[in-house]
Amino acid sequence: MTGSNGRLRVDLGDRSYDIIVGDSLLASAGESIRTAAGNGRCWVVTDETVAGLYLDQVAASLSDSGFDVQSIILPPGESSKSFATVERIVNTVLDSGPERNSTLVALGGGVVGDVTGFAASIILRGVNFVQIPTTLLAQVDSSVGGKTGINTRHGKNLAGAFYQPRLVIADTGVLDTLPRRELLAGYAEIVKYGLIRDSGFFHWLERNGGAVIDGDRDARRYAVQASCTAKAAVVSEDERENGVRALLNFGHTFGHALEAETGFGAELLHGEAVSIGMVMAFELSEMMAFCPRTDVERVRQHFAVTGLPMTLPTAQGRRWDPATLIEHMGHDKKIRDGQVTFILARGIGDAFIARDIKPETVRRLLDGAVAA
Amino acid sequence: MTGSNGRLRVDLGDRSYDIIVGDSLLASAGESIRTAAGNGRCWVVTDETVAGLYLDQVAASLSDSGFDVQSIILPPGESSKSFATVERIVNTVLDSGPERNSTLVALGGGVVGDVTGFAASIILRGVNFVQIPTTLLAQVDSSVGGKTGINTRHGKNLAGAFYQPRLVIADTGVLDTLPRRELLAGYAEIVKYGLIRDSGFFHWLERNGGAVIDGDRDARRYAVQASCTAKAAVVSEDERENGVRALLNFGHTFGHALEAETGFGAELLHGEAVSIGMVMAFELSEMMAFCPRTDVERVRQHFAVTGLPMTLPTAQGRRWDPATLIEHMGHDKKIRDGQVTFILARGIGDAFIARDIKPETVRRLLDGAVAA
Repeated sequence: MTGSNGRLRVDLGDRSYDIIVGDSLLASAGESIRTAAGNGRCWVVTDETVAGLYLDQVAASLSDSGFDVQSIILPPGESSKSFATVERIVNTVLDSGPERNSTLVALGGGVVGDVTGFAASIILRGVNFVQIPTTLLAQVDSSVGGKTGINTRHGKNLAGAFYQPRLVIADTGVLDTLPRRELLAGYAEIVKYGLIRDSGFFHWLERNGGAVIDGDRDARRYAVQASCTAKAAVVSEDERENGVRALLNFGHTFGHALEAETGFGAELLHGEAVSIGMVMAFELSEMMAFCPRTDVERVRQHFAVTGLPMTLPTAQGRRWDPATLIEHMGHDKKIRDGQVTFILARGIGDAFIARDIKPETVRRLLDGAVAA
Repeated sequence: MTGSNGRLRVDLGDRSYDIIVGDSLLASAGESIRTAAGNGRCWVVTDETVAGLYLDQVAASLSDSGFDVQSIILPPGESSKSFATVERIVNTVLDSGPERNSTLVALGGGVVGDVTGFAASIILRGVNFVQIPTTLLAQVDSSVGGKTGINTRHGKNLAGAFYQPRLVIADTGVLDTLPRRELLAGYAEIVKYGLIRDSGFFHWLERNGGAVIDGDRDARRYAVQASCTAKAAVVSEDERENGVRALLNFGHTFGHALEAETGFGAELLHGEAVSIGMVMAFELSEMMAFCPRTDVERVRQHFAVTGLPMTLPTAQGRRWDPATLIEHMGHDKKIRDGQVTFILARGIGDAFIARDIKPETVRRLLDGAVAA
């Protein structure tokens, strides 16, 4: 697979779709979208940052393929994942009289993808949706699987829809313009796939993770493709997260609590929070005697070498309170019958769903993390 | 079937659900919902009018069955089908920390059902949804089939979701408190099922329509049950309206244009607009030599006897302009490749989808209708 562009399939019956992974795919985006979603009207939704870099190229490609293209440019950042933005996108599209075969293209990171997908799902009760993720995080995680949504004052992603795209175009070439901090945040989700179900891939990352981060094109393409393949397999098994899909939340229950505390902003990126959360999940797994210490150390070693964060950040004077973090977990949406779900690990590549964790145990772990 | 309560199934794979039709079902609503949707937290969404009549009874029944019940009371009327209302419902529910097995119950007419279903579809990307329709129109049409949504400044139902309820409870006893005008508006949708696919049912209505409208309990129950059965069959065949489901729009392309012109308000109720639209569809069908005049006259005769509206209302000084009506049709969301879809009939009980109607033909029909 290394060395060439690839196409993989997310198998979901009549909602199946392809993910194309490779270099320099933006130039042929129009043709790919025309094949996957037909022709007609097309809206490219992006943010100001990405618009400056790639909007012209994508819009030109769509125009060349016969689409009537308009663009909607959002302010960058998490605050665009709101009811107000969805309403703005919906009304802007409706202003021009869309039809059911019209297409919304999300060009950007997770925020753009989530809010655009949600808008696409509700316009005329569903128009075509295409993802062109431009961050590593979005390429390996949020653009695949059909979760769309917005934040409310209660928390992140608490309103939204399961809505599958018609196509995902992951152009690994665009990662060259990504700041290193965002690259690392995306890399955390790549490591996750190794940690939860694929010790062989984790081993590959131990050898090649540095190359992925430093910009080796073949390594990047392989890592993105392997991650999408892993996610596609899980999503095909369990589209609406009734079972195995919960494994993808590895590190996320802790991570979301950290993000809730820091306001889902630049102080702590999602991938950074997940990175710290995955280390916490391994520590908790060891504390409860599920996982040997050697595996926890091997994880810590890889995180240290690649530069993934492992400890609660205090640089900006942030003080952490275990009780508050536990309260944030209580607002996590993956709650059933009042029980917070944790994903723990028996070792590298062997995660499982645990619903019966005592709050005291979590408290003990957090006390340790705060003191560290 | 006449004479007893009944239960019928909408067959949609893992989204299948039951419709219960009968007298005095509100008293046992809690038990029925518990069986269909499990227990947990429950929000009853209703409007001020219905709240005064039935909220206490439904809330008590839910409480007795072990639900933790809260209520959300909306202003009555079409203006509640808005982004603002959805946001209000979503935030109110999120205020109390819902879980994925929480349930939203829509107690009311089509407006309450549509906006509550849409909110249920997006809270945590989907919580349980139950419909208790309290108007004849909602019982025989909008509560069955999973179309939810809101209006925007561009038109009706232009944003929403396909989201199936877990259960529909159609208590025909509540129709006793419904104003006669609303009863008739609902009756128009009952007649529709006969006109599009079931000449035998239309014949039954010719003999029993008066009894349905005047309040005969057995006749009402049978008419509601037959209508739900007809709609369930169509929806099971074609959930997302790619084919046969379009037949349910019989009379609606004209009807929506009339509603758009009158502002979707009390001047012309949805069912009244559909009633006029169905007569127009038959006249157009005859004009194009699809349908014999005898069938058109038989339809007109039944509408006249039961009091269904057939002509454009001018009582409030309204003046109708054919060109404006045609423009409204151009904004109908059931457009593909720029062509407005009409449902025409070869006769009573034999409707079909027609996409190639010339605007001049429609104009000629409307010129006649405006002059009438």
